[in-house]
Amino acid sequence: MTAPVVAVVGATGAVGRTMVSILDERGFPLSSLRLMASARSAGGVVSTRWGEVEVEDLAHADPEGIDIALFSAGGSRSREHAGRFVDAGVTVIDNSSAFRMDPGVPLVVAQVNDDAAQGNPGIIANPNCTTMTLMMAVGPLHEAAGLRSVVATSYQAVSGSGQQGVDELMNQNTSLMPAPELLIRGGWTEPEHTVYRRPIGFNTLPFAGNEVDGGYTDEEMKLVNESRKILDIPDLMVEPTCVRVPVLVGHGVAATLRFERHLTADEAMAVLSSAPGLALWKDRVPTALDSAGIDDVLAGRVRETLGEPGGINLWVVGDNLRKGAALNAVQIAELLR
Amino acid sequence: MTAPVVAVVGATGAVGRTMVSILDERGFPLSSLRLMASARSAGGVVSTRWGEVEVEDLAHADPEGIDIALFSAGGSRSREHAGRFVDAGVTVIDNSSAFRMDPGVPLVVAQVNDDAAQGNPGIIANPNCTTMTLMMAVGPLHEAAGLRSVVATSYQAVSGSGQQGVDELMNQNTSLMPAPELLIRGGWTEPEHTVYRRPIGFNTLPFAGNEVDGGYTDEEMKLVNESRKILDIPDLMVEPTCVRVPVLVGHGVAATLRFERHLTADEAMAVLSSAPGLALWKDRVPTALDSAGIDDVLAGRVRETLGEPGGINLWVVGDNLRKGAALNAVQIAELLR
Repeated sequence: MTAPVVAVVGATGAVGRTMVSILDERGFPLSSLRLMASARSAGGVVSTRWGEVEVEDLAHADPEGIDIALFSAGGSRSREHAGRFVDAGVTVIDNSSAFRMDPGVPLVVAQVNDDAAQGNPGIIANPNCTTMTLMMAVGPLHEAAGLRSVVATSYQAVSGSGQQGVDELMNQNTSLMPAPELLIRGGWTEPEHTVYRRPIGFNTLPFAGNEVDGGYTDEEMKLVNESRKILDIPDLMVEPTCVRVPVLVGHGVAATLRFERHLTADEAMAVLSSAPGLALWKDRVPTALDSAGIDDVLAGRVRETLGEPGGINLWVVGDNLRKGAALNAVQIAELLR
Repeated sequence: MTAPVVAVVGATGAVGRTMVSILDERGFPLSSLRLMASARSAGGVVSTRWGEVEVEDLAHADPEGIDIALFSAGGSRSREHAGRFVDAGVTVIDNSSAFRMDPGVPLVVAQVNDDAAQGNPGIIANPNCTTMTLMMAVGPLHEAAGLRSVVATSYQAVSGSGQQGVDELMNQNTSLMPAPELLIRGGWTEPEHTVYRRPIGFNTLPFAGNEVDGGYTDEEMKLVNESRKILDIPDLMVEPTCVRVPVLVGHGVAATLRFERHLTADEAMAVLSSAPGLALWKDRVPTALDSAGIDDVLAGRVRETLGEPGGINLWVVGDNLRKGAALNAVQIAELLR
């Protein structure tokens, strides 16, 4: 491919804006950049290293001439428009969940299962942000010892719900902060909320996504099904619990991992130390704030299991807008060159 | 025992103050109340339903005549003073970790293992707040199906570190809130912190307590050892991960439970529905804020395991100052009457 024409679809959202800045930061060798969004945001002009770019209305945008389109405009827009882009010869890298479990669509965590992107598929799916973060540590450990089961409990940031999630947390913090004693002793007034079903300010909300089967949420089932597909372990046992916490950026996951063979903490740390795209912190505890704005996913608290021996407990945290979404999409695009 | 003389030791701390208000709320039939604290806080006067009570200096307070002393003044003060209280005939209910694992000291979660409090021991220990919250759901399920293993991941509120934890979160929120874009893209300035080793405002900090063996913290080992003692399962397998979140009150725990026999979600919910001191929320998701200021521990998100069948995934959250500390101590005192 000569320098490709790249489009960012959903360019005005939190992930879309991050995609544009990551293309810039990495000096992605594109010949021209096109930006698309819904009619509401169309017509605006965005300053980029490739000049002033006017945002096109996705509904009427002609995909002709585009080589790679990074979609982050939600599942329904992906379902509506990805097909016509592919028909026009575009490779679509889709950040929504629309096509992830389609057997014909590769689901790629760059630096973990790059090979899946080969063969020029029309659509390549970008995994769910929580799954992605976990896979950066679990992929290399699976390679080393054969993963059998995962208990994964998440600490998800509000920017995973886009700018509206950020706004909801900031507004609730502002309204709740003046009366901490009511938060401690009870008697707080329910703050306005539209994004989440319960308040998120000063709160832990053990529910992310929408309920599907057996009391699990779609967010939790993504952790199960996407992990199985990415690692190519159809019968991988996953116990998922997804929880939203009052943090702006940085999805954390606490995981208990069991393998075909026993792993010591030292072996696991040796594997993680050389894992690409992952930084193992041994002397400092990696937190959500540490992960914000950086490319590496951070791992820490690697411990041998205390009960049934041979497993590993660990913590992993990553920027949900970058590696969890926009960075991985750009990395997939780099694999295509 | 006729109406007892009750002392609250550590009366000016977050838990001690809650002890006094819970004694009041429950109309605890005490004949007189004594309050004690360190020299720094001694001399102050507290208004109670039993009149104005002057705070005595613990170091010089005479335990003579006290029937029950509720200690919440930290482990070193408990170790220093509990013995002389017991020698004077006082029953000490101790909220610190000082005596919890002493084989001669009962470790009691009221409404779960009340029988352990019998036999007039000199000291009865109040469990760790995270363990306590978890036990309120796990105790009844163990009774029903025989617990084999627990993976427990916590979401701990800053008031678990006392008023200083509350102050640290509020101060950091105030200093970080004006520049959310730095929290999102990186470049935030490290806020002042003395209570926690890393910032807690807008952050997830996967480390609570102090490091002990194998990379685990003392807080995590409490979950292991105290659960074994309370449930009387010496070989219970526990995988603990303790994480601090930017919440004022309400310790949450996500747990994966496995039993001697298979449990369905319906069976587990039937057990939890009739568990004393626990409220099972089926139609609403119980959050940390919901638990603040109430006596019941809240349980929800009861799901059958997706991997190895027959286990239960659930969420439990409780007020760490009340059931997690002060309420349970008062409930133990009620068992003694």
